[in-house]
Order: sequence, then structure tokens, then C-alpha cells
Amino acid sequence: MSARSVEPTIVVHGGAGSWPAAGDVDVEDRRERGVAGCQRAAARGAEILAAGGSALDAVEAAVRVLEDDEAFNAGYGAVLTRDGTVEHDALVVDGLLRAGAVGALPGFAHPIAIARRLLEHGEHVFLVGEGAARFAREEGFVEAAPGALISPRAQARLAAMARSAPRVEAGDTVGACALDGHGRLAAATSTGGTIGKRSGRIGDSPILGAGAFADERLAAFSTTGHGESILRVGLARTAAERVRVGDELDAACRFALAELAERTAGGAGIIAVDPRGHFAHAIHAPAMPWAAVRGGRLESGIDP
Amino acid sequence: MSARSVEPTIVVHGGAGSWPAAGDVDVEDRRERGVAGCQRAAARGAEILAAGGSALDAVEAAVRVLEDDEAFNAGYGAVLTRDGTVEHDALVVDGLLRAGAVGALPGFAHPIAIARRLLEHGEHVFLVGEGAARFAREEGFVEAAPGALISPRAQARLAAMARSAPRVEAGDTVGACALDGHGRLAAATSTGGTIGKRSGRIGDSPILGAGAFADERLAAFSTTGHGESILRVGLARTAAERVRVGDELDAACRFALAELAERTAGGAGIIAVDPRGHFAHAIHAPAMPWAAVRGGRLESGIDP
Repeated sequence: MSARSVEPTIVVHGGAGSWPAAGDVDVEDRRERGVAGCQRAAARGAEILAAGGSALDAVEAAVRVLEDDEAFNAGYGAVLTRDGTVEHDALVVDGLLRAGAVGALPGFAHPIAIARRLLEHGEHVFLVGEGAARFAREEGFVEAAPGALISPRAQARLAAMARSAPRVEAGDTVGACALDGHGRLAAATSTGGTIGKRSGRIGDSPILGAGAFADERLAAFSTTGHGESILRVGLARTAAERVRVGDELDAACRFALAELAERTAGGAGIIAVDPRGHFAHAIHAPAMPWAAVRGGRLESGIDP
Repeated sequence: MSARSVEPTIVVHGGAGSWPAAGDVDVEDRRERGVAGCQRAAARGAEILAAGGSALDAVEAAVRVLEDDEAFNAGYGAVLTRDGTVEHDALVVDGLLRAGAVGALPGFAHPIAIARRLLEHGEHVFLVGEGAARFAREEGFVEAAPGALISPRAQARLAAMARSAPRVEAGDTVGACALDGHGRLAAATSTGGTIGKRSGRIGDSPILGAGAFADERLAAFSTTGHGESILRVGLARTAAERVRVGDELDAACRFALAELAERTAGGAGIIAVDPRGHFAHAIHAPAMPWAAVRGGRLESGIDP
């Protein structure tokens, strides 16, 4: 495939789960906010692709838009641990399997940017906790003020969990997959994890092959949903392996979700882009907002 | 397959890398120590299987033997971070995809036992850093005294790294895979990671699908080698997917290592046991000691 023979494409998701979620007060417009946030993020990534930018730059920029949006469980507004703190997980990977991930990271507004820096740095793939924060400070990232990442909605959701079921799926993890004009793929995922999680808990999002995966020979994937279930099944890599054996992109995503449904009790969603610019979005969950831009055309919606 | 129709089997490894390693002073008997340690660990696991114990109990017990043995990079004697501290990674998984993992865990002699407790606990799959240590204390695990896990050999290896190349593969991660008399599979991996790693660095070992994997329909796998490379390729799950499409166990392991060689600059080793009691061990690395017990018969060696 020659350079510039492909149409740049980006698809983003705003998390598979309940839209609206337990603890939400503005239930009427919650779904609209989810779709609108995905539209803004996809448009931002598409701008970068249209200007000749890389798939990595596009997915990072799209996810940063979602991290800044309090409608989603990432960056500002991420759900809280049982200690009432924010701990972020994020992963970015390109089609050459270059990857950077951070887990249980306290105190930074854009975890995906720190994961990207780790990818470029090249020594390690995955840093967690205070060690990840130390890396971020060394690289010049500025810590948020204490409490600055905690939204009123996140506090309401933790309180709602305390009042009701002990296990609530947070459901609004964010992610993006892109194909750039040079045929390169990338995927990114960012989350605050599950409501009321233990401090130090790592879900699927920062795990290569679970929360995201990309391989230039196959496709790029970002997933969302119940972290422990996605981690056990290896949702993103399971879908990628189906592409390897000849499945169409949509069928590969549905195979991986069927595997999840067979082996676990968790729900999930997945988005994907392949080297031809085909994209897919599928869920085994109540709902997932998404948006995509291909050939300058924006599509969006909330599955199912 | 009816209960008791299968021959219990266990295989263990002592890590793929240089045997002896840079910084070793007792170079003559280092290889013998590696094989002897694997023999003891396999024998301990086999004892449990022969008494009707579970595959999970067998792999945990075998890995504990290796964690206690200073010849290996796990438990006591694990390699040191660039700060001179010990941070352990460990993972255990069974054929039903139940899993427990700890990462960047400071201060405990048997990380695999804490991972096992997390598997039984069932809320989360993966805990890291101080959050993992807090879970361990709550569950009654006793912390090691400051410095008690640091061996003279680990100090010599960190010093050797400081004198020579900045990137040294530690190479003596440990792991075990077992099939019990009821046809159940399990796998476990435990390590101190890479010499001179950053605090908070997570390698492949605690990552389900990279450092270990098990699926009752396929096989159980434990891997070892350059963590970032194994993590990128998803070595254990890549091998498992080959079993799914019909490869023999040994061919599946070799396919996964070939994928690693094609996509990364890292070395690795892998062991496996399938539901029929076939076992395999293969490397793309200088050496790997291993031992196996099947039908009461001990086999061992150092590959290649």
C-alpha cells in the first residue's frame, strides 16, 4: 500500500455501561453529552489527521478532549477510589507495537500524555503509582492541585454506590483508534477505573491486549467495560487474532465480545479501525456513545 | 474427559537469559544451581498433585520454592531497582481464567501467595504498589524486615550493571504450569523484573496473556525474558491462540517465540502444559533451566 493511498479515519468511544449512570442527577441530557463529547473528540483527532498528523498524535489529542470533559470517567471527573481519591489508568499503542502505559497514577490531568511520553522514551512500557508520577514530574508534567481532578458528579457516584450495590460498573472509560494518511495505526484508552475500587487496582485499560491493541498487519482496538472481565479475556487481542485468521473487522469485534459473554459476567464495548480505513463499534453492555470521522464525514450515535 | 483420566503433570522454569549472569561470582556452579532449584520446585509441586491437590496449589507451591531460592530473580534475591530496592511482580491464573496479580509490590517474601489470595478474593485481578501491600497486610501476610529480601548477589548484579551496559536482561524469573488429576490447569510466574528498573516499572510477568495464561480448552503457559518485549507481543496468549487454531503445544510455543523475534529485540522463554498432560519448553534466548514431573518421572535440563 503506497503512502497517501488511504483515507485517514478516527473513531472514539465514551465508554460502555449505563447512560445515564447511578448517581447522575442530570439524567435527561446525559446521553446527549456523551455523544457530543465523542463528536468533539473525533473532530479534534480528524483535524490532526487532515493536517498530515500521525495516528498517534490523533488518538492522544482525541483522548485529551475526553479527559477534559467531566461527562466521562477519565482525567477530570474520573470516578473515585474507596478512599475518595482519583487514580488513573491509560495506554497508547501504535501499529508497530510501540506502547506506553500508566496505572494507578495519582494527580495528573492528562494521563494519556504521560503514557505517550513513556512510549517515546522507550525504556519501559508500563509504570504505576508513585513511580509513574515521578517519571511524569521528571518529564515536566505539572501535577494538579489536591482535589482539582475530583468532580461533584464523581463524588455523587461514589455516594450512590455506598447506598446501593457494592459492585457498580463505571462504564464511561474513553478511547480512540486512528488510521493516518501514511497507513499507520494507533489506539489509546484512558479511565479512572471502577467506582469505589481499592487504591492500587489496575483494570484492563492500561493492559496491552486488553484495554487497547494495535498491529499494522491487523487493526487498532480500544475497549471499555468491566475491567477485570476484559483483562481476563484479553478482549482487544482476542479481536485482533480473529482479524489474523481472516474475520472482517466487525465480526472480529463480535467474536471477542461473545468470548467475554461466555467466560465472564462482565459487560464491554469495543471500537476498531483497520488499515483500509474500515471502522467498527460493538457492545455487550447497555449503551456506548461513539463518533467517527472518515473522509471528512462525521458519524456518531449511542449503541445499541 | 472423566475425572482421574489424566496424568498429573508439572513443569517449571528458572528464567530465560544468561546462565551465569553478569555480576555472578560463582560462575562454575550457577547453571547447576538453576537446574537443581527447578528440580526441587517441580518435585514439590508434583507431591501436591500426587496427593490429589489442585493445579493452583501445585504451581503456587512450586513458585514459592523458587522464590525462597537465591539463585533466582524472585522473592528473596530478586534484582534491585535503580534505587536499590526490591519490587516484585507475580501472577497466577487457572484454566477458568480466574486470576490474581501483584505488581511493583514492596516488602513481601512470597508475592505469588499474595497473587493467589487476590484470585480467591475475587474483587480485583491486579493490584500494584502500596495498594497491593495494603491488601497483603489486611489478609494477614507479614512484611519482611527492611533489607531482608536483598541478597549479596542482587547487589553485585546492580553494581555490575552500573559498570557496564545500561540494559541488562535479568533473565531468572521463575514460573510453573500444572495439570491436576481432575484435568484442571494453572500457571504462575514471579519475578523481581529487570536490573536497575525504575521504581513502579511493571514488566510482562504480572500481565495476564503476557507473563502467564491458562485456558482449560487450550493449555497453561508461563513465560520469562525481556519484559517489555514479551508484554508487547503478548507471548503467552499468542501461543494459546495457536493451540486454538490447531497447533501442537510445542509448535504453538515456537510460533509465539518467532513472533517475538520478528517484532522485538528481546529474548524470551516459555513453558506449557496442555489438558492431555503434554508439556513443552522453548527459548529464544541464551539459556533456560527447567524441570518437569509427569507420571512420577522427573526430567530436567538447561535449554538449549
